[in-house]
Amino acid sequence: MNNLPNIDCKIDNINVIDLRVPTSDTLLGSDPFHKKPNYSAVLTTIETNTGHQGISVAFTAGAGNDWIAYGVKDLAQLVTNMDFSTFIDDPGAFFRLLIDHHQLRWLADGVNRMAIGCIVNAMWDLWAKLVEKPLWKLLVDLPPEKIVQCIDWRYLRDALTPDEATEILAANWDAGETRENALRQKGPKAYSTAGWLGLTDEQIVETVNKVKASGLDCFKMKVGQDLDFDKKRLAFIREAIGNDARLMLDANQVWGVDEAINHMEALTEFRPTWIEEPTARDDVLGFVKIARALEKYGIGVAAGEQVPSPVIFKQLITSGAIQFCQIDATRLGGVNDVMAVILIAAKSNVPVCPHGGGIGLCNMIQHYAMWDQISVSAHSDTQLVEYLEFLQDGVFIEPIQVRDGAYVAPTTSGWGLEMHPEFVDRHIYPTGAVWQGREASGGITFLA
Amino acid sequence: MNNLPNIDCKIDNINVIDLRVPTSDTLLGSDPFHKKPNYSAVLTTIETNTGHQGISVAFTAGAGNDWIAYGVKDLAQLVTNMDFSTFIDDPGAFFRLLIDHHQLRWLADGVNRMAIGCIVNAMWDLWAKLVEKPLWKLLVDLPPEKIVQCIDWRYLRDALTPDEATEILAANWDAGETRENALRQKGPKAYSTAGWLGLTDEQIVETVNKVKASGLDCFKMKVGQDLDFDKKRLAFIREAIGNDARLMLDANQVWGVDEAINHMEALTEFRPTWIEEPTARDDVLGFVKIARALEKYGIGVAAGEQVPSPVIFKQLITSGAIQFCQIDATRLGGVNDVMAVILIAAKSNVPVCPHGGGIGLCNMIQHYAMWDQISVSAHSDTQLVEYLEFLQDGVFIEPIQVRDGAYVAPTTSGWGLEMHPEFVDRHIYPTGAVWQGREASGGITFLA
Repeated sequence: MNNLPNIDCKIDNINVIDLRVPTSDTLLGSDPFHKKPNYSAVLTTIETNTGHQGISVAFTAGAGNDWIAYGVKDLAQLVTNMDFSTFIDDPGAFFRLLIDHHQLRWLADGVNRMAIGCIVNAMWDLWAKLVEKPLWKLLVDLPPEKIVQCIDWRYLRDALTPDEATEILAANWDAGETRENALRQKGPKAYSTAGWLGLTDEQIVETVNKVKASGLDCFKMKVGQDLDFDKKRLAFIREAIGNDARLMLDANQVWGVDEAINHMEALTEFRPTWIEEPTARDDVLGFVKIARALEKYGIGVAAGEQVPSPVIFKQLITSGAIQFCQIDATRLGGVNDVMAVILIAAKSNVPVCPHGGGIGLCNMIQHYAMWDQISVSAHSDTQLVEYLEFLQDGVFIEPIQVRDGAYVAPTTSGWGLEMHPEFVDRHIYPTGAVWQGREASGGITFLA
Repeated sequence: MNNLPNIDCKIDNINVIDLRVPTSDTLLGSDPFHKKPNYSAVLTTIETNTGHQGISVAFTAGAGNDWIAYGVKDLAQLVTNMDFSTFIDDPGAFFRLLIDHHQLRWLADGVNRMAIGCIVNAMWDLWAKLVEKPLWKLLVDLPPEKIVQCIDWRYLRDALTPDEATEILAANWDAGETRENALRQKGPKAYSTAGWLGLTDEQIVETVNKVKASGLDCFKMKVGQDLDFDKKRLAFIREAIGNDARLMLDANQVWGVDEAINHMEALTEFRPTWIEEPTARDDVLGFVKIARALEKYGIGVAAGEQVPSPVIFKQLITSGAIQFCQIDATRLGGVNDVMAVILIAAKSNVPVCPHGGGIGLCNMIQHYAMWDQISVSAHSDTQLVEYLEFLQDGVFIEPIQVRDGAYVAPTTSGWGLEMHPEFVDRHIYPTGAVWQGREASGGITFLA
């Protein structure tokens, strides 16, 4: 379990690309707010003097992808010419260099934290590649003290102390190999969204059948536009998936707090497992109120894809606001932040059910799910990992795989985010071939 | 009370300037995180076909100022060529065009919401100039229904309904003229920071005496570096300001939750009125815990300058997490957002004590304080408005004024944010004269 690379290298350059896919042509990926998203990614590549590279992506909905790219290019100056060993020696100190930058900190979360995540995640990719391990395996093999060293504890100690984190990880250490072998046989359990708002009934049946064929038995549906429409569609989907399948609902923050409770109380007969993002991304007390109101129906609250900071996650988890913790791979400041959230969730027995979709998110979250289920919660009894098959083939050289309703443990070194060069070339915004003659539908004024 | 301009105009162009002042030369403005801030501003100017202009500033600590400027330039495309009457007819619809942009919304708060605030605040400035009123007077003269129309109620109704907002404003309507006359005589009560971390004892005495000479009797001090140092300095400042003066403390988020409680329990003998930002900007439940622990000592919690959204403000105000609501002029999405927070605070009887300092913040918050004290809370019994005199003379054509410990009600049309052209020219980053030969100390790698 050697996690130190044989060679050191120096960061020569960080390359940042604004990639956008014109997914607004179809309504796949639509929700009440993101009506016509162009699934986009900031593709960050760390280049070194030895030729080794670390890469990351950050997902966005189109416009604004360049805002994050702009930030990453600025942050890159803090890292260029650094010996890579500086990062491995103390990943926590490296993280604080970015997260507590003495002037940039004023920008708070959102673009700033997401841009930081781009750099941090590419650093972890490079580390995993230098030791020739998939990212999850690098994390699994790190001693508990090293994990603890990665985390910025300043605002988290009231929920979890570094000692408690060490205890959680150490307690699972001996059984790690058994858990790892089990997950290599059958990876984290997957679920998929079948009920996109923009789809017809026929398209939904088609999607459900396709998803079922992959062995999945948990399905998600978008709700929140109109109660009558939701009821009809829920009845239809419940029929299509069968009575035993789990059904999850996703409102994408369309409701106010009381509105969410009222709407959900009208949908209890369809026995949803959770309601995802019933209200604003940062309304901890609102989620608490909703969770308490829905508890008696056996409906939990899920959130995370837009939770802007580990401090908000801390509150959501420890207050009973969420029953399912949907970490996202590119919303926070990268691996260091996400590890903290997974550890806090484990202490509170809140299952980690990562948010997928977008570009590259599923590719990344499978590593977090593996680490969680081997080293942190150390079981696979309650978690579900989002799975969406689009933007995989033709995009990633090693697409994600699902077998018998479960992710197949990745084996490539790093995150496995390498894209086909021709895909990258064609989708650079606004100069790539795909955007020629349609630049406007990729920019901020599209649909304005 | 005509609030409709005689002429309509069309937005031709939005000009955005990255202004930075090398304040890092001194330690004025330093705090535990922002060790050497260069007080900076995104200066946004809306240009119209009639020659009328609307301007706004957003304050930052230096690096990252360009990130916001980049965002404002992108958002400008949504507004260019718009008839200005579109905004006046429905300022709420205009606000949602920006805040719920169907792709950009994914960027959440931070840079995005601050960039939106730049556009929104410049629109309000233009409106006030077209009707030749200072901004506070435009707000005071708007009928309650118009104020209600400005606000994005989606996530706020559980704290305050539009009807309740109308009632609050309507109830104060008749007494408005009396209140207005009173505040024209003596404006909102001011307080100042005397105890900057970087200052010597002698410099602090000098600052205290200067502040006292302006009639102020409330002083703030930075704490949180070291308990012994804090105790010594607090004893010293308490001595300098006298036993009857109010003393406020500011920790700038340096502590964790329990650490904040422990540290503050060791400082009770100095009888501080509030502890400002004892922990992370978005830790609602952390602030609740701190507020409950300090209640028995008569110490309140204050926060707001980095509160990233009205939803977090809503929670802070309604949960008892804060006893002093420190709205900031450029952290949120502009006037529309801030009006919502002031209204929610009024319902909960939490005094609005705006955050000042930076560049232009005091110039802007005086308008909010006037509106609050005339039309919303409709009294001046409990509020304190931060006042810092630096970056006024030589910067703004109409600097803020304090007399007998109170702001002097502004009379210039709009925000009164017009700057001396030569100041602007000299401080454009990185090409202005001030930055020649010192570009590096204005950028992200400074102190890295």
